[in-house]
Amino acid sequence: MLGQLLLPEIEELIEQRDFVGLRLALSELTVIEMSDLFEDLPPDDVAVIFRILPREQAARVFEYLSLEMQEVMLRALGHEQVAHVLNEMKPDDRTALLEELPSEAVQKLLDLLSPDERKVARDLLGYPEDSIGRRMTTDFVAIRATWTINQVMEHLRQIGKDKETLNILYVVDEQGILIDEILLRHVVLARPNQLVQDLMDGRFACLPARDDQEVAVREFKRYDRTSLPVVDSQNKLVGIITVDDILDLAEKEETEDVHKMAAVEALDSPYLDVGFWSMFRKRGAWLSALFLGEMLTASAMSYYEDAISKAVVLALFIPLIVSSGGNSGSQASTLVIRALALGELNLRIWWKVLYREIGTGLALGFLLGLLGVIRVHLWQWLGWANYSNHYHLVSMTVGLGLVGIVIFGTLVGSMLPFLFRILKLDPAVVSAPFVATLVDVSGLLIYFGIATVMLKGTLL
Amino acid sequence: MLGQLLLPEIEELIEQRDFVGLRLALSELTVIEMSDLFEDLPPDDVAVIFRILPREQAARVFEYLSLEMQEVMLRALGHEQVAHVLNEMKPDDRTALLEELPSEAVQKLLDLLSPDERKVARDLLGYPEDSIGRRMTTDFVAIRATWTINQVMEHLRQIGKDKETLNILYVVDEQGILIDEILLRHVVLARPNQLVQDLMDGRFACLPARDDQEVAVREFKRYDRTSLPVVDSQNKLVGIITVDDILDLAEKEETEDVHKMAAVEALDSPYLDVGFWSMFRKRGAWLSALFLGEMLTASAMSYYEDAISKAVVLALFIPLIVSSGGNSGSQASTLVIRALALGELNLRIWWKVLYREIGTGLALGFLLGLLGVIRVHLWQWLGWANYSNHYHLVSMTVGLGLVGIVIFGTLVGSMLPFLFRILKLDPAVVSAPFVATLVDVSGLLIYFGIATVMLKGTLL
Repeated sequence: MLGQLLLPEIEELIEQRDFVGLRLALSELTVIEMSDLFEDLPPDDVAVIFRILPREQAARVFEYLSLEMQEVMLRALGHEQVAHVLNEMKPDDRTALLEELPSEAVQKLLDLLSPDERKVARDLLGYPEDSIGRRMTTDFVAIRATWTINQVMEHLRQIGKDKETLNILYVVDEQGILIDEILLRHVVLARPNQLVQDLMDGRFACLPARDDQEVAVREFKRYDRTSLPVVDSQNKLVGIITVDDILDLAEKEETEDVHKMAAVEALDSPYLDVGFWSMFRKRGAWLSALFLGEMLTASAMSYYEDAISKAVVLALFIPLIVSSGGNSGSQASTLVIRALALGELNLRIWWKVLYREIGTGLALGFLLGLLGVIRVHLWQWLGWANYSNHYHLVSMTVGLGLVGIVIFGTLVGSMLPFLFRILKLDPAVVSAPFVATLVDVSGLLIYFGIATVMLKGTLL
Repeated sequence: MLGQLLLPEIEELIEQRDFVGLRLALSELTVIEMSDLFEDLPPDDVAVIFRILPREQAARVFEYLSLEMQEVMLRALGHEQVAHVLNEMKPDDRTALLEELPSEAVQKLLDLLSPDERKVARDLLGYPEDSIGRRMTTDFVAIRATWTINQVMEHLRQIGKDKETLNILYVVDEQGILIDEILLRHVVLARPNQLVQDLMDGRFACLPARDDQEVAVREFKRYDRTSLPVVDSQNKLVGIITVDDILDLAEKEETEDVHKMAAVEALDSPYLDVGFWSMFRKRGAWLSALFLGEMLTASAMSYYEDAISKAVVLALFIPLIVSSGGNSGSQASTLVIRALALGELNLRIWWKVLYREIGTGLALGFLLGLLGVIRVHLWQWLGWANYSNHYHLVSMTVGLGLVGIVIFGTLVGSMLPFLFRILKLDPAVVSAPFVATLVDVSGLLIYFGIATVMLKGTLL
């Protein structure tokens, strides 16, 4: 907000090389306002500002920049400044940045780190992609059960304010194995000569470092917590993960799922930042695949070309009927995919879903079938259309076709996500367009199958 | 986990009325394990367990139960116990529960609260639905700038451990106006005789109580924070909102959006808990609306009935062509809706999106058009189909139809969410099926329009 207002002023100060005025103007901004401002300035200007900012502040602002802007800055800044910024970054934010860069660049940047920080960075990058270990920070505070509260406070004063979170202290044994966690506020309220173990209740939750980040999102939603400890396979405390990273992660995963559900490959940048050809590929690939699948409708229709030429009236209802199948199918698939993602459903109870969806599909099918029958009769009666002398039979064909297709669409839509999960594929790929395409082809066969039976001897 | 294992044992203990053994078995569980366990037990058994639990623990477990289970418990428990549980609940969790109940029940429950708690509950319920005020808690710690650190620590010890979060302390002036916030960890690390104002930097973020909860979700994502203060219109501190509530809120909003995007009215309960008729209504309403819209395709086709009977070959490609329009439209609408929800796009830059989507739509249209032309020629050449002597013209009709419909679908899909936003409607309603239906009708007109021009004098 404030940053936006200052934008013209700051641009002018940079142009005039008035660094004193610039420093003064910037001093009024918080790091977050500054980072917002930087996203609107040309990278060269941002590089100028970075050089005049106090080092500490530059490092803090850097952490709030978008990954794209961070990359640009790394290229624009001098070696020494990059080294400083990287060494000052929180380990988890640094990992996120390094993940985005090509491997030679990562190597160069690792060389700029102090030996200690380099070890931390390497360790974090050593965890599998999308694992919790990649998103954790090593800035936690570990204490021992045998310490007094006084010793704990002394320890806190020594390590100072640098730690990402002091709100929770972790109790470890001689081997570094996590045995409990204690809230800072309980420490503050305890008597100085009490022992840490007097405050312990042995109850804590922790996350395995090699588990997928989705697990972390789920656990954070389950436990109302601001941070959770991360342990290795021997239960040794290796880091903590904080809820602000989880909010970002949850948002990123949601976006990927939403995009997949519309048959778009997940974009990895904001909409306006995706290049033209990248956007074309991510949409064109799925569109073409769906088009190839949908070609089967032309083949199916060819098979019934004779029937159509005898009773053109049949063709009139094709878009209406196949789209209803697609719509009911995508409703069912979306509900099931979302419920699977939220953990409301699991593989074992697929039959409960099947049972429900048979009922719902039948009810919805009859609803639309009824509307279809009414439509044909009403238009015929009002004289708006002439569906031949056998319009009763036509209306029955349309009605029964709708019942069949809606049930079929609902079942395909609700069961495919389970099938995908069994095949270890991502259920979110069962997009609305994917289901619609499947149901279109089979829907035509159902419709013409019913028509062949119903209209035999009259129109056909 | 542990709760699941104990389930049979606990059921048996209840049946045998072995309350001592039951109390012992339960003592091994955390409140979260206990609440998980309760969700799997029959409500009557849970009511039994509630009565033998220590009061404090009963109140804490209650907070972790689902809203549905909480309602059941309220009915099963005696007056006195309900009064205790409600008085012990965190104000924000209590508001969430009261919101779900019919208004007479709320009145009865409010009467059970202590005068102080009743005032808090009434105040919170006084904020508009879906406002930040409804989700906040009044359990914050306010301090004064003129206090010493010693006084602050004394104050903390007095109010004790009850406060939802002590991690951040809020500095207010004589009128209760929020002037700063201070981290507990900075207080811990300060000298006892320092003044609070020495630690202040006057930089803090806060949320207005009457703003929509969506604002809170966005601000939490922006600032990496575990809680934010909430102020009224005079900037007086009235509560705080914590990030665990935000995670739940964000998830609920995502689910609503995802459901809307598949043309399902948002479910307010997990999939399996929604009743049959409720599910039928939430899906049937949209399906019927889409069906009524899609009826226009039958009318459009009637208009071209003559053309179809002269050239049945035209009918064969209808599902292929209209579905491609729907697919490209739902891709575009989903991308734009998601980008709007994430704040990556706003109304002012609609023209940037238009510009991009014209380009993307053209490219995608030509891609699919080319595939269409190849399809017609290939099948004709392989002898798999006979698209008449004029199959060149047929292929051109199909190809140009695809170009036109894909561009049209892309533009409709990308611009409708903006239009909805301007009309103050929720852009998420521009679902894939909604766009597909719109594009189906207009797509048929485009296709037959092109056919009339291309095939005049030959097939038509």
